[in-house]
This record gives sequence, C-alpha cells and structure tokens, in this order.
Amino acid sequence: MMDMPGGNEDAAVDMKSIVQKRLEEMGAKFCREIEMGVFPAVTMKSRSTDNIFYSPKHRQYILGDRTVTRSSRNIAHLRPFTQMVWTAFFVHELLRQRKTSTLRDVYYSAQAYDIFFKDQSESDNIITDLETAIEHPRESFNVFPEERSAVFGDLTIQYTVPGYEDRRMNLSSHPDGVMIGPALTDARFIETSADKVIVIEKGAMFTRFVEERVYERFNAILIYTAGQAPRSTRYFIRRLNRELGLPVYIFSDADPWGMHIAMVIISGSANAAHLRQLTTPDAKWAGVWASDIIDYKLPSEKLNERDLKRLKELRVDPRYEDSHWQEQIDIFMKIKKKCELEAFSRYGLTHIVDKYLPERLKEIGA
Amino acid sequence: MMDMPGGNEDAAVDMKSIVQKRLEEMGAKFCREIEMGVFPAVTMKSRSTDNIFYSPKHRQYILGDRTVTRSSRNIAHLRPFTQMVWTAFFVHELLRQRKTSTLRDVYYSAQAYDIFFKDQSESDNIITDLETAIEHPRESFNVFPEERSAVFGDLTIQYTVPGYEDRRMNLSSHPDGVMIGPALTDARFIETSADKVIVIEKGAMFTRFVEERVYERFNAILIYTAGQAPRSTRYFIRRLNRELGLPVYIFSDADPWGMHIAMVIISGSANAAHLRQLTTPDAKWAGVWASDIIDYKLPSEKLNERDLKRLKELRVDPRYEDSHWQEQIDIFMKIKKKCELEAFSRYGLTHIVDKYLPERLKEIGA
Repeated sequence: MMDMPGGNEDAAVDMKSIVQKRLEEMGAKFCREIEMGVFPAVTMKSRSTDNIFYSPKHRQYILGDRTVTRSSRNIAHLRPFTQMVWTAFFVHELLRQRKTSTLRDVYYSAQAYDIFFKDQSESDNIITDLETAIEHPRESFNVFPEERSAVFGDLTIQYTVPGYEDRRMNLSSHPDGVMIGPALTDARFIETSADKVIVIEKGAMFTRFVEERVYERFNAILIYTAGQAPRSTRYFIRRLNRELGLPVYIFSDADPWGMHIAMVIISGSANAAHLRQLTTPDAKWAGVWASDIIDYKLPSEKLNERDLKRLKELRVDPRYEDSHWQEQIDIFMKIKKKCELEAFSRYGLTHIVDKYLPERLKEIGA
Repeated sequence: MMDMPGGNEDAAVDMKSIVQKRLEEMGAKFCREIEMGVFPAVTMKSRSTDNIFYSPKHRQYILGDRTVTRSSRNIAHLRPFTQMVWTAFFVHELLRQRKTSTLRDVYYSAQAYDIFFKDQSESDNIITDLETAIEHPRESFNVFPEERSAVFGDLTIQYTVPGYEDRRMNLSSHPDGVMIGPALTDARFIETSADKVIVIEKGAMFTRFVEERVYERFNAILIYTAGQAPRSTRYFIRRLNRELGLPVYIFSDADPWGMHIAMVIISGSANAAHLRQLTTPDAKWAGVWASDIIDYKLPSEKLNERDLKRLKELRVDPRYEDSHWQEQIDIFMKIKKKCELEAFSRYGLTHIVDKYLPERLKEIGA
C-alpha cells in the first residue's frame, strides 16, 4: 500500500473550484463591459472542422489557433450569446449548490428561466461552446452523462459529495462493482495496492475477471465500460493513470468497433478536440487483436460490409498511424474475420484469465 | 431497523441448491433409463404460442397444460436432446464451481466440449427449454444477463459468492450506486430501515433521487433499471417485495415504452410464460402518467406513428385490462403527446422530488 500524493494538476476536486472561478471571471468581465458601455462579448477557439488538427505531440485531436468572437453587439449573435450566459449561470448554480445534471436536464431547466432552446441539440451545442470557452469538460461543471460503467478493485477513495464528505470506501467492497457516476468521478484517491488498470468493454468479461480474482492475481483495478466508454469514465481512467501513475490496458472485441473503443479512451474523439481532460495517451490496446484470432484459433465471424468500410476509415485516421494499429488493420482486412472477448470460452471459461491475460501482459511489457 | 426473516420460498441462496438438486435428479433419471434399456427422454410444458395464456390470478402469462416429450429414441429429437443434456451438465458445473456465465458464453463454451450449436439462438433456445424443464430461471443456474442496472439505499446484505462469504455490506455505501450483478442477485437480505422500493428508468433521475436524498426523505431503496429492466434486476425487485414485504413503485417516461417498462416488472413478458420468479404483480406504475402531462403542464413531444401503433397493441394486451392502464392509454391517444421524467426540470431541478413524488405517493396510498 502506498499513500497517494494529492494536489495533482488533474485532481478532480480542485478542478471544480478552478472552473467555478473561471465562470465567475466570465460573469465579472461581462459586468465590467456593461459598466464601461461596451457590448459584452466572448472569444473562444473555433470548432469548425478546418480548425481541428491531429496533434502527434498530444496524441489527440486539438483545435488550431483560429478564434471566434460572439458579441452581444451583433444581432445574429444575440440569441446564442444569451443562451451561453444563462448556461454559465446555470452550471455555476449547479457547482454552488453541489448538484449535478445532464444535457437533457439542462435543456428542460432552461424553460424554468424562460430561456428558449428550439431543441436539445441547440442546448448541447451551447454547452460545448462553454466547454471551449472555459477549457474544461462539462463534467467539471457538473453536467454528467448517464451512468452505466463500473469499477472494481483495491482502491480506497474519499467521497466529496454532500452527505458523504470524508467518507472513505474501498472499491472492492461490492463484487458486482460500483457505478462510475458523479460521486466517484470527483472522489479523492487515497490508497491502492494495484499496479495497473485493466479496462474491459464487455460485462460478461468484467464479471469473469472479478470471479477469477484478476484484481488479486494481477494487482489490477478493473473498469467495465459497457461498450464505448462514457466521457466521465474516460476522465476517471485518465485520473487513475495520471494521479496514481498506473498503466492502463484495454481489452475489447476484435473488430473495428472494439478497436475504436480502445482508441477513444487513448486518444479521444474529434468532437472533443477542444478538451484535454478526456484522453489517456499512454493507455495500451491489449486485445483482442486481429492476430489473436489466428494465434489462438478463436471462433470468429465474417466481417460484413459495414465492418470493412469502417476499417478503411480507421486506416487513414491519424490516430491509427502507429505501426501496430496499421498491422492489425491489415490483418483484419486480410483474414476478413472478427471475434468477441467471449470467444476464449471455447477453451473453457477461465482460459482467458489463466492463459491469454498473463501471456498478453508479458508480451506488452506490463 | 428490523431483522428480516430468512428461509422464504424465494430466498435466492436456497434456490440454488434446489436447482442443483433438480439437475442431479434429471441426470439420475437419464442414467436409470439407460440402465433399464429405455431411451432417455424429458417431458416439459409446451412453449408454443397456442399454449401461452394470460392468467388474471397470477397476473402474468403462464403456460397451459399441454406438454412435449423430447426422446432420444426419436432421431429428430436426438440433436436438441443431446444439447439439453450437455447444457444441464454445464450449468450444474457452474453451480458446483460457483462460477457464473452468460448466454453468449454458454454458446462458445459448448465448443470446448465438441457440442455444436449452429448459432447463439439455438443455444439460447435450449437454455429456455432447460428453464421450462426445471421450472427455474437461468439466473438460478448461474447464467446471467450483462449487468447494467444499479441499487442504492439502506439495505444491509450478506454476500454468498466465493471470497465474500458472510461479508456484510450496506447498499448506501457508494452514492453512485452498486451494480446489480450475480453477487447481489444472490445476496442474503439482512436488514433495512426502508419501507418502500422506488424503481426509476432513467440514470439522470436515479442520480437526482440520490442527490436529493429520496432514500432518507421517503425511506426508500432506489433501483435504476437503465431502460427495460434486465431479468436479474426484475428478480431482485421481486425479492425486495417478497422477502422484505416492501411495496414497489415504478417511475418511467410517459410514453408506451416507459409504460411497458413498468408492466414488464409487474407482469413479465410472454416469452417468460414458463417462469414465475421474474414478476412483481403488486408493484405499482407510479408515473409519469399521460394525465400528468396535462395536470403538471409538462413539456411534451408529439406521439409518432410507432408510438401510436404500440399504444393500440397495449390496449388489447390482457396485462393492460385494468381500468387505470386503459384510462391512461385513452388519454395518450387523445392528447397524442408523450414526455420524459426529466421534463419536471422545467420547474427546477428538485421539483420532481419536492412536489411530484410526495403528491403521487400520497395519491396512490403509499
């Protein structure tokens, strides 16, 4: 067991007070402008596609230097500007009152203030503007996705949500796992005996890994993403990597969709190019690889047209430029097969844990 | 706080040993038949649609008296008979070794024994046969659905899974909720201060209910179904109702799909007509009703063609014969509107908990 250093750049709790301060500064700026007789305006990076670039240095998409200014002087800007000011006010209230919300909830809440959004995509877009302007993800101003992923392992955390202040809990207390929601996302990490994080796409394998005591045998914290990892789960994985210095290994189905689940955890998505807090560039895609279908003689299915089209897209995607990804895409294209994590059960239920997992971890130097 | 009586008919732990015994009896019967020079055979209730009836007494679909016999004497039966014998052997191994599995996993595991299923639907069907023959749901022989739902509230449980034997935990220990997976499904209920169960379809509202301390203010155990409740969650809700005697109130979106989420928890589905362990006939659909859209002036959307078609189906569905359901279907048809749980945020984030919830619970005599 080791005690974890606090006060890391990424630490979730400090993040909230930084964001709260940024929102207040934004509001104070608007007030000053009004007092000075100037039309309030906000300047932020442009999110148009011609300002989105892949950065090999950051290993994610980032925004270029072009900016846009939204001014209350411009009648065409007045509506989105007003919506953004209200949204900033609303999420500041969320932080102040220590309540959380969702994109859908924000859309409906606007009506309580006679602020009009024609549909949810309009309010979602304003929230993305706000993320861009204050350079923090919406989770840091308490707008969360629906929970659906879970964690299990020896990690003692300290909750910070109202009613749970300073309550310490260990994440191995419930064998089915604990949901990753607003409370866990913001919890402080206290101590762990784990030396790695294993991320699993499928519930069946997560349950298998818990039952076969992977957390003990491989000193791992287990994360279940339930398909594409929700943003708050990606943020949580990043925190485990950054704050605890734990390497992250991702296991997903051997097909373009499983591969991309791993990639989004590692390098994020183009539509989050304005954010840096959702990626874990050092995380590794640990399987199931296309080459595993051959090497482990796994039961497989034929790739369909949609799979092949997707593989062609990934081949030219800058996030996939690394030779290992390219090799695996080539193998997929050649064998035209895909397979699932569960396919290892062909050799018995525990084969994946007894044989495949230790071999793979050794192979990638874990 | 009250101590819970053990040894209820439904108690999950005893169930497993009953199922294990039934499987052994089935195997012993086959052995005796072989020794006596008789072709082994299994007789079970027919699941064909003309043998499925709605039972007002049980408030669920049930199978009629017609049976089918699958005999190893009949060459056309030999394949499904063999598959069923293997499946019975395999799930008995799961119980004996205290491991869990999924439908997908069983399909792949067959290959380890050179048992052939042409696709997963064939193996799924054999598992349903086995459920029918031994009259217990597959969860009781350790074949579980993927986890995705959660629970939160003051309920102390005692795990029975390996490594956790006799470990007592309270389900309010993690504010984001604990996943309902194999371990929790089979845990013993020790004590609770709750006097009701509130089931919620949407993650956003589950989080809201936790944040607004519904568990304390209304003495409730909260369940999050994540859409249509997985079978093991329906079984867990039934256990809370049966073993703890807690009334169950279900909140879902005001549309035919939300209504049916409530109905399936209450009365089950036609394709589980061979099982009695997945329903909670005394659970109540507590909202959001079609009439609430009018009474609470909720933001709504127009019902589309698919919604209207579904309502027409539900209107003649025997599970919906009760006058309250019929009234609500009539109102939906008349106003042609639907709305979501989140729509209450139109009056502020806490309105649903501060106003709607207490009014509704009072109205339905909770």
